[in-house]
Amino acid sequence: MPKISEEHRAEKRQQIIAATLRCVARDGFHKTTMAAVINESGLSAGSVYTYFRGKNDIIRAIAESGLTTIAEAITRFTPSHGSEVAAPPPEVAIEAATQHLLDLSEELDVDLPKIALQTWAEAARDPEVRDLMAPEARRIRDAWRTYAEAAIDAGRFRKDADPERIAMVLTGLLPGFILQRLMLGDVTPKIYAAGLTDLLAQPD
Amino acid sequence: MPKISEEHRAEKRQQIIAATLRCVARDGFHKTTMAAVINESGLSAGSVYTYFRGKNDIIRAIAESGLTTIAEAITRFTPSHGSEVAAPPPEVAIEAATQHLLDLSEELDVDLPKIALQTWAEAARDPEVRDLMAPEARRIRDAWRTYAEAAIDAGRFRKDADPERIAMVLTGLLPGFILQRLMLGDVTPKIYAAGLTDLLAQPD
Repeated sequence: MPKISEEHRAEKRQQIIAATLRCVARDGFHKTTMAAVINESGLSAGSVYTYFRGKNDIIRAIAESGLTTIAEAITRFTPSHGSEVAAPPPEVAIEAATQHLLDLSEELDVDLPKIALQTWAEAARDPEVRDLMAPEARRIRDAWRTYAEAAIDAGRFRKDADPERIAMVLTGLLPGFILQRLMLGDVTPKIYAAGLTDLLAQPD
Repeated sequence: MPKISEEHRAEKRQQIIAATLRCVARDGFHKTTMAAVINESGLSAGSVYTYFRGKNDIIRAIAESGLTTIAEAITRFTPSHGSEVAAPPPEVAIEAATQHLLDLSEELDVDLPKIALQTWAEAARDPEVRDLMAPEARRIRDAWRTYAEAAIDAGRFRKDADPERIAMVLTGLLPGFILQRLMLGDVTPKIYAAGLTDLLAQPD
């Protein structure tokens, strides 16, 4: 296949995913039908169905695109094993991860926190959607686990700390950031990170 | 109004709320119509409409009943100002709050984490629902803030720590517990609390 065609394919896919994200952010998950996606994308039905057979194909693509980059952002500030660079403290890591989520929203021009809430609800309702999204949740947890291992190596946590359990707590902080931003509107990456600093600091 | 009538009223309301919770957990938010609630409750349409004029009235009641008890659970382990009892460490507080959520699910015989995810998604989509739920989110944050103030008094955090910021992080841990339980199924209150202990412990 010539290279131009592959690029074209990737571009079309991205165009359909972006249209779906806009639909979900605006109308919620249930009202986002294939017809709505086709309409929003400005492409023909035939063209959209060439790339995605149905809504679940698009959800899978969204899960793989959007959330993977969160895992990648976490991996980015985790030094590789044996590296001389020390892992940053957890508050720096949380600030970077939450800021990445906001930057990505701006870059894609969609409200990713809103979309995240829609897809979680759908995963709670539909086991098929949950199974589509679980590997991505696992990838985010694994990225935090690798960070926690590096942070233990760097002496930021006790040597006998369990990196998987630390990863659960760090993973757990992301949905709470998203939800409080929606409900109360006052949380920023900087303030959230400062709260973690206050929580972690030893009393005088 | 005679007392028996008020009790009867409260019982009917609770019966309708419980029916709504079962509908939402099973079918999601969008498919939970007033007709579905009436059917699930086993009451007449006239009876249900006596208590709630529409779905938003029921959502408000759910928000006020379910989430308030989370705030109450947090308040329960926070000693009142001037008390000689010290506030428990944050990992004990998080374990109690997450365990309360699971106990309450069992007691009400509905999957509260699932319902929480449905209502958050609806709040993200519908500003009216968000406005209904925001005071409850605020109440949970305030309960954590009061806890954080007591924990600062008890010397668990630095004297200059900001209780509101600490409350943001502790509030933030609850949605992440719910979501990881759904997606990965491996988080328990005890393990989550142990993760927080590992995160908070000073390195050797």
